[in-house]
Amino acid sequence: MDLVNGKVELVHGSGGRAMAELLQEIFFPAFDNEYLRQGNDQALFPVSGKRMVMTTDSHVISPLFFPGGDIGKLAVNGTINDIAMGGAVPLYLSAGFIIEEGFPLADLQKIAISMGETAKNAGVPIVTGDTKVVEKGKADGVFINTAGVGMLPDGIELSGNKPRKGDLVIVSGNIGDHGIAVLSCRKGMDFSTNVISDTAPLHQLVRAMIAAVPGKIKCLRDPTRGGLAAVLNELALQAKVGMMIKEKNVPILPEVKAACDFLGFDPLNLANEGKLVAICSPESSDTLIRAMHHNPLGRQAAIIGEIIDDENNLVHLETIAGGVRIIDWLYGDQLPRIC
Amino acid sequence: MDLVNGKVELVHGSGGRAMAELLQEIFFPAFDNEYLRQGNDQALFPVSGKRMVMTTDSHVISPLFFPGGDIGKLAVNGTINDIAMGGAVPLYLSAGFIIEEGFPLADLQKIAISMGETAKNAGVPIVTGDTKVVEKGKADGVFINTAGVGMLPDGIELSGNKPRKGDLVIVSGNIGDHGIAVLSCRKGMDFSTNVISDTAPLHQLVRAMIAAVPGKIKCLRDPTRGGLAAVLNELALQAKVGMMIKEKNVPILPEVKAACDFLGFDPLNLANEGKLVAICSPESSDTLIRAMHHNPLGRQAAIIGEIIDDENNLVHLETIAGGVRIIDWLYGDQLPRIC
Repeated sequence: MDLVNGKVELVHGSGGRAMAELLQEIFFPAFDNEYLRQGNDQALFPVSGKRMVMTTDSHVISPLFFPGGDIGKLAVNGTINDIAMGGAVPLYLSAGFIIEEGFPLADLQKIAISMGETAKNAGVPIVTGDTKVVEKGKADGVFINTAGVGMLPDGIELSGNKPRKGDLVIVSGNIGDHGIAVLSCRKGMDFSTNVISDTAPLHQLVRAMIAAVPGKIKCLRDPTRGGLAAVLNELALQAKVGMMIKEKNVPILPEVKAACDFLGFDPLNLANEGKLVAICSPESSDTLIRAMHHNPLGRQAAIIGEIIDDENNLVHLETIAGGVRIIDWLYGDQLPRIC
Repeated sequence: MDLVNGKVELVHGSGGRAMAELLQEIFFPAFDNEYLRQGNDQALFPVSGKRMVMTTDSHVISPLFFPGGDIGKLAVNGTINDIAMGGAVPLYLSAGFIIEEGFPLADLQKIAISMGETAKNAGVPIVTGDTKVVEKGKADGVFINTAGVGMLPDGIELSGNKPRKGDLVIVSGNIGDHGIAVLSCRKGMDFSTNVISDTAPLHQLVRAMIAAVPGKIKCLRDPTRGGLAAVLNELALQAKVGMMIKEKNVPILPEVKAACDFLGFDPLNLANEGKLVAICSPESSDTLIRAMHHNPLGRQAAIIGEIIDDENNLVHLETIAGGVRIIDWLYGDQLPRIC
């Protein structure tokens, strides 16, 4: 990165390698502390003898309303999920709004109601907030930041560095729905689909999973920006292992597959907003999958591959055709502002 | 408010009456819960038998760099202060960045380093973060959200509804510095000044104040957007009292007074980023003021007035000329994007 004359580019916000570089070169050195160095989507810290987590996420999605949801629902679910992926119980949320002058009050109200309902249904209240307005042309409708805190129950230890050879890789359901749903209503996109976003809060599913196989889940991660490909590569790097994924086992809706074929997209790179990846000891995987199938958000859960030794930390894909290719981590993203 | 055809205007983000209307009509009904109903800048909630607070603030200041600080320093101090105003000890911060494509990496690094140093000096680490990038023309350089959590020590009970007749109103130092400092470097403003922003973390001052007069401080508030006038009016309404403020006792730098005279601004409406208002029982005020004078951030602390009975909850100002006028709460703000 050229820190003297360089500029921020769209790829720096995509959840791919370019963003990882931006974090490594600018933010991690500037903020350096033991919590940030954990390298997870949520920070774990002690508060009077207990373990808590905190997370934050800004949402800049375009368009603001899409099949299956809106920016508000996405923001609430996204932050609940970042907390849940640490194995923690989400407790309280904050909401910060940056609104462009001229934004319709009716749309703002619609988004606020959607956030309130999503938070209420999940049992995680929005307890504090902030509102800023900038001149017309200085933002894009509305941007929403949600931060959240949660409590990590005693005995739960999930981390991306725990996966070992032989562990199994599980995904909780069909991949790519959110990416295709948003894409289908982007200006200039000339296709239609019935696919709706999968945006959903995953904390109840996580609780059921942990209860089903206590101590046997190594780590959880939600494949949002960057999709399944980015999350698998991140985990392989963090755990210093490789992975062998079987393409035929990766659940995907036929409509999403068709849209990807039509658009030339790889579904492994598409964003998801209500799915998780779990890595689990092999002896517990059947029990875990059964527990997931009992939860509405885990009904399509499937074992998609296993952890292998690989000094290059590559994610291999056994294709339906029978060959093997490497699942690469995109430098940027297929499309910006997907969440 | 016209929730059918109305639009968000700049005044809705100004911290004045228009923003209060937006919150009352849209956000409070949509998010309704007991924590939000507390109506403070930070939410107080129980976590395993202890009391914690959470707050959030988005920063959209223009320009990003100003005399005495930058958007990063402002964001860290602002969130520390919102926690401290509840009497709580700030513990951990999150940081969410929304960056406009094309923003110089060098400026981003400068802001990140400033945030890291401010957080380190305050002893409150930034433990988690998020980065989004939007297309050129869809934001304005960089917007930063900071959220924070803190712990409220046992026995501390501050609330805007506690002030009673006879209590004294204290301000921790000169008012209006931040507003004038930012204004002086706005494009199109044709004046220069030596005034620098007062941005500073107030948590150590607050700790010293509480230790000096345990149980005697009724409430604390930082007069940011909307200035001293907005905070005094908010507190009068919340406590269902009136106030009598003596203009000659309100500390203000001669340069700030001169700039206000020149620009036609009322210093009571100018933003502050390192000042607080305290309301205190009269018998403890001397001890409190002495303790404040011992802290570098409270050296100019002064008693500026007292709580009176007033069924209209008005804030009266005894002017230097000897008359009395009402300090009104602006509908909007003198200038947008001051923090």
